[in-house]
Amino acid sequence: MSLLLENQFPQLPSIKEISTKSFLESVSHLPPFFDCLGSRVFAPIKADITGNITKIRAVYESDPVKYETLQKILEVEKGTYGSEWPKAGATLALMWLKRGLRFIQIMLQSLADGERDENNPNHIRVNITKAYEGALKRYHGWIVQKIFKAALLAAPYRSDFLKALSKGETVAEEECLDNIRQFLVNFTTTIDAIYEMYMLMNAELDYTV
Amino acid sequence: MSLLLENQFPQLPSIKEISTKSFLESVSHLPPFFDCLGSRVFAPIKADITGNITKIRAVYESDPVKYETLQKILEVEKGTYGSEWPKAGATLALMWLKRGLRFIQIMLQSLADGERDENNPNHIRVNITKAYEGALKRYHGWIVQKIFKAALLAAPYRSDFLKALSKGETVAEEECLDNIRQFLVNFTTTIDAIYEMYMLMNAELDYTV
Ligand SMILES: CCCCCCCCCCCCC/C=C/[C@@H](O)[C@H](CO[C@@H]1O[C@H](CO)[C@H](O)[C@H](OS(=O)(=O)O)[C@H]1O)NC(=O)CCCCCCCCCCC
Ligand SMILES: CCCCCCCCCCCCC/C=C/[C@@H](O)[C@H](CO[C@@H]1O[C@H](CO)[C@H](O)[C@H](OS(=O)(=O)O)[C@H]1O)NC(=O)CCCCCCCCCCC
Repeated sequence: MSLLLENQFPQLPSIKEISTKSFLESVSHLPPFFDCLGSRVFAPIKADITGNITKIRAVYESDPVKYETLQKILEVEKGTYGSEWPKAGATLALMWLKRGLRFIQIMLQSLADGERDENNPNHIRVNITKAYEGALKRYHGWIVQKIFKAALLAAPYRSDFLKALSKGETVAEEECLDNIRQFLVNFTTTIDAIYEMYMLMNAELDYTV
Repeated sequence: MSLLLENQFPQLPSIKEISTKSFLESVSHLPPFFDCLGSRVFAPIKADITGNITKIRAVYESDPVKYETLQKILEVEKGTYGSEWPKAGATLALMWLKRGLRFIQIMLQSLADGERDENNPNHIRVNITKAYEGALKRYHGWIVQKIFKAALLAAPYRSDFLKALSKGETVAEEECLDNIRQFLVNFTTTIDAIYEMYMLMNAELDYTV
């Protein structure tokens, strides 16, 4: 679990404002998560998420004080983009990024909770499907949903996936799952706070791609 | 057809050595071809092909004299990469790029030849499938083949595709097809020459992704 545990998300301050700088630092370690799935089929997903992060970083770096928190990004962009907003700028990039993060979160939570297909205990398709349905499916048209179903067949075995998360070290499965649980604490809180912010600011869109 | 016709491939000299510089200039206009398919689903394909071009350009620019022709690239890299070759460097990038180019060529040729599904005359699925089978299918494992089948459903109507190729100008269909035919002359010769070079240099591989 080194991949995730070495780069934990920080605990949020009680007011739930998320520092853009530390958020960017934490999420920058997540694209390799998709390499752990072990197939080039997932490369476009990694690229999409990396693109979101690059977009948010570019906005942040253009004025680190003005864009100090994620909240400030949405507020400032709401003003500058007018009626185009929220389908613009870092607001749009974070809208999609949070869905990818939610996907990762639900999938890891499902693994940590021991959810399995009893007939295929070494498959993680149930965990991936649960995450997809919870985080992304409704934003995908039927063709992308069909592509997802095909891509799912390239998912690795559970044992190989856990090993890849541990960066190849042979870690006992229970230890790896414990690491996942520990990683999920601040990760989940952070994602929840971002979703809440999108709701409160009326920044969520539900068009499909 | 302006998209293709404005950027025709040059005629090859009789010895069929292809100038790297003019090849790069010509192919750099092709990634927008995939935008003409009209769906974000094709973005990863465009990215893959753009990546190939970027890789070849980087090698060329590192020493424009040494890498003056595509032939020279293969010869030099064969020496430098040793047993890794041909699965390395610009040789690998061009190996895949030529398949994407062959895909485009077969698809356009099939359109120019008037091949159609009589039951769905405004579909281009038969033309795309023919191109896929001729250029790529054998290099794709069954999962990517399944993804292709799903992605095919996002293909545009024939009329919309021809219009996009004409950059939105309303050009008579026959004129557009004539433009395609004209574009295909040097384009096909160039691709054939690259395939011949890979065969003669024993640089072709048939692993699947
Ligand atoms: C030879 C045959 C080839 C056929 C080619 C077929 C290719 C199929 C391509 C499938 C799509 C790949 C995933 C990317 C999907 C993306 O389309 C969506 C929307 O993407 C967003 O779009 C916005 C505009 O609307 C902005 O551009 C955002 O960009 S912006 O930064 O500029 O604002 C961008 O992220 N992102 C998504 O759906 C997010 C995806 C997260 C994925 C989470 C994990 C899923 C895991 C699945 C495991 C099984
Ligand atoms: C939420 C759900 C999300 C699920 C995500 C699913 C994503 C599915 C991804 C599908 C794959 C996209 C296409 C890319 C495929 C690529 O894998 C292959 C090999 O790509 C090559 O690989 C080499 C190493 O082996 C080098 O890295 C080459 O790179 S190097 O430059 O570094 O040497 C690279 O081009 N290229 C290909 O197969 C070429 C593809 C050409 C496409 C031609 C047109 C097809 C048109 C089809 C129309 C219907």
